[in-house]
Amino acid sequence: MALDTTHMDYFKQLLGEENAKIDSLHKLAYSYDATRESREPDMVLFPRDEKDISDILKYCNTHLIPIVPRGAGSGFTGGSIAADGGIVLALEKHMNKILELDTKNLIVRVQPGVINKDLQNFVESHGLFYPPDPASENQSTIGGNVSENAGGMRAAKYGITKDYVMAIRAVLPNGNIIRAGKKTIKDVAGYNVAGILIASEGTLAVISEITLKLIAKPKITRSAMGIFDTIENAMNAVYKTMASGVTPVAMEFLDNLTIRAVESKFNKGLPIEAGAILITEVDGNLEEEIQYQLKLIESRFKENGCVEFKVAKDSKEGQDLWFARKNASQSISIYGKKKLNEDITVPRAKLPELLEKIGEVSKRYGFKIPCFGHTGDGNVHTNVMVEDLKDLDKGHEAITEIFKIAVMLEGTLSGEHGIGLAKAPFMNLAFNEDEMNLFRSIKSAFDPNNILNPNKMGL
Amino acid sequence: MALDTTHMDYFKQLLGEENAKIDSLHKLAYSYDATRESREPDMVLFPRDEKDISDILKYCNTHLIPIVPRGAGSGFTGGSIAADGGIVLALEKHMNKILELDTKNLIVRVQPGVINKDLQNFVESHGLFYPPDPASENQSTIGGNVSENAGGMRAAKYGITKDYVMAIRAVLPNGNIIRAGKKTIKDVAGYNVAGILIASEGTLAVISEITLKLIAKPKITRSAMGIFDTIENAMNAVYKTMASGVTPVAMEFLDNLTIRAVESKFNKGLPIEAGAILITEVDGNLEEEIQYQLKLIESRFKENGCVEFKVAKDSKEGQDLWFARKNASQSISIYGKKKLNEDITVPRAKLPELLEKIGEVSKRYGFKIPCFGHTGDGNVHTNVMVEDLKDLDKGHEAITEIFKIAVMLEGTLSGEHGIGLAKAPFMNLAFNEDEMNLFRSIKSAFDPNNILNPNKMGL
Repeated sequence: MALDTTHMDYFKQLLGEENAKIDSLHKLAYSYDATRESREPDMVLFPRDEKDISDILKYCNTHLIPIVPRGAGSGFTGGSIAADGGIVLALEKHMNKILELDTKNLIVRVQPGVINKDLQNFVESHGLFYPPDPASENQSTIGGNVSENAGGMRAAKYGITKDYVMAIRAVLPNGNIIRAGKKTIKDVAGYNVAGILIASEGTLAVISEITLKLIAKPKITRSAMGIFDTIENAMNAVYKTMASGVTPVAMEFLDNLTIRAVESKFNKGLPIEAGAILITEVDGNLEEEIQYQLKLIESRFKENGCVEFKVAKDSKEGQDLWFARKNASQSISIYGKKKLNEDITVPRAKLPELLEKIGEVSKRYGFKIPCFGHTGDGNVHTNVMVEDLKDLDKGHEAITEIFKIAVMLEGTLSGEHGIGLAKAPFMNLAFNEDEMNLFRSIKSAFDPNNILNPNKMGL
Repeated sequence: MALDTTHMDYFKQLLGEENAKIDSLHKLAYSYDATRESREPDMVLFPRDEKDISDILKYCNTHLIPIVPRGAGSGFTGGSIAADGGIVLALEKHMNKILELDTKNLIVRVQPGVINKDLQNFVESHGLFYPPDPASENQSTIGGNVSENAGGMRAAKYGITKDYVMAIRAVLPNGNIIRAGKKTIKDVAGYNVAGILIASEGTLAVISEITLKLIAKPKITRSAMGIFDTIENAMNAVYKTMASGVTPVAMEFLDNLTIRAVESKFNKGLPIEAGAILITEVDGNLEEEIQYQLKLIESRFKENGCVEFKVAKDSKEGQDLWFARKNASQSISIYGKKKLNEDITVPRAKLPELLEKIGEVSKRYGFKIPCFGHTGDGNVHTNVMVEDLKDLDKGHEAITEIFKIAVMLEGTLSGEHGIGLAKAPFMNLAFNEDEMNLFRSIKSAFDPNNILNPNKMGL
């Protein structure tokens, strides 16, 4: 149901005119995410606190008004876009405070609108460490990270957002405020509601506060790069290294197309003939640990066709090694106007087969498909590059093929971007009707009137 | 509804007489768990495979027959006891196979009836490691561990069962078979159904297969013990050590009463005047790492009143150090006929206050309350010892006080034992009515007819 002026007046009264916007500038600014798809909401609301969220949701629930929670809008699948009008509930403006740093228990408590990198910097200034580092870390909010279960480069060793969420406060569509989880490492009282709110893409409740686990920051980190003649060798090296008893912080890769793209843009002297490069990082508190890990990685790499292994001498050289990886995404735009990027994930040992089959799709459809990403946890960013926009449908066919391959290899449609709008049409590749019906029952248990971020995730 | 002979005949036909039992011996054997409370089911069924589970559930769902899944029955809260008759679905007899060890991806796939220790031994024989080690490891099954989210000694470093569950196959009450999670490190497609099945105590679905993450086994482990004059000093040492950048595998404690109990039973030369002892273990692949960790722990301990710090010279000495901890539970029976044992958990820095307040409860009620347990993650096994059974009600009052203290200190009713029947009356101390109603909605989304393990968890 669309908003009428009575509804708009209610919200203006509740939040003040400055926090209840219907002008075209606000509607445009809050209409899109990183997919670049744009759908305008009828109104943008800026709640000041949890009570505002509760009042807003209660009203929406009574009047059946769709409402979409939003952090920075940096998502890749349209999760924070209002699919069918209604309200965007923007949490980054007021609800962006770090509420408590508990150094005795290694815990931090934040509002959902805190930016990931701000949190990282804050806790690091106290000698602590919040590992999840999605590529969007400078923009994306912790609320968004939790809602999509964001990953990042360090996931190979340190896991993903879900591994750091201890407790959540959230507002249900009926306005009830609930607490889920505890400040304790263990808690088995009641259902794991925090666990199901993570990655629920704002469809079950609005998260109003998050308690996160921190760890002590390791004293030493060191980066290294391996150059491989073929991508198959590189992918074998990844899973054999990870299975051999060493757990690097990161184990990232760039394929030949990506290497060439970065080199053509930045002239960094990258090995443009290489089939792939792997960039890795290890950490620890002792130099001996660092050396032990690097030696193990080097020998696994070399056993698997690594033609050159370079260890960074210092953090400056380390940054140089990471430059190519950090600029991969923007560089590959040389291959086409439209980038259809997906973040399929497979069990690591299936990486060689995955990359081989993506190569076949590239040949069959005639698109360049540069790949890079988080091979340490089997997560590959595949980019179908469409040069001529009239080929977009064919591009989507290629993407569908790639999804089918991922599922066939016991993988998933998404390692970290979520489903949102963009991947909703593919849910039936991964889930059968019984499973989809269970998702719908869960949705209904939290949100019986279907007001919260409706029409997402293929529900 | 009780089972009539038509129902019984159906199950005998479905599974064969040998797998559908109504004799009094079977009904007695499957009537209790480690709480020693006994409630007889009307029938005990031994499904042979997932299809049997599906057929049984479908029938129960149609005929509204209560059904309770059960592993080893070693739980501490009555989770696997048939509260109101009906069927016990015993999974340990046939569904106890290790289905697949995937050494390339460090994954193992098992049926729910596999015994925890058998799994540990199996994967260790391949150089791999499954860390969760509940005290019941020699009896309890992986299905039970998942259903209660079991912890153990190694949780301080390695986390608990939930941290190792990658995927679950389960049968819904309507007989539908669903898959939840993937063999991938990351997976954000669809709701986290595996996450909510963990610790759901068999109330949402029957788990038919579990895929677990393994890690490489560290090459070296070393144990150490610290003796403290007061329990307050010991508790301060725990949280200050854990916050200082070292993560021991285990950080366990015994209070004075527990030390005396073990000593009186086994004469091991334990320091019976000590306020508490802490027993810890570190691991790694290099001797330097081991030394680094032990030095850090020793200095934190000594800064906090540790009067003696002993490092085990070898694994024999290590076992000696652990002897007291492993025999704590059985030894304290000298203090009373009935042991009311609970596993409250608080944020680690609240341990000193928790133990102080438990001491006050002990004085006020006149019960000895020996405490020991997993202080490394704030999890304390508190044991209200009732000598005269006519004081049992008073004992329960003391327990209620202790629960209130735990909740006041931002802790939880249960770190690893679950709620089941035993703690159901205390759920309202930890959750408000809105939160309980959300649990009921979730229960209903999975099990609309309330046939699966009904009347548990205070729902």
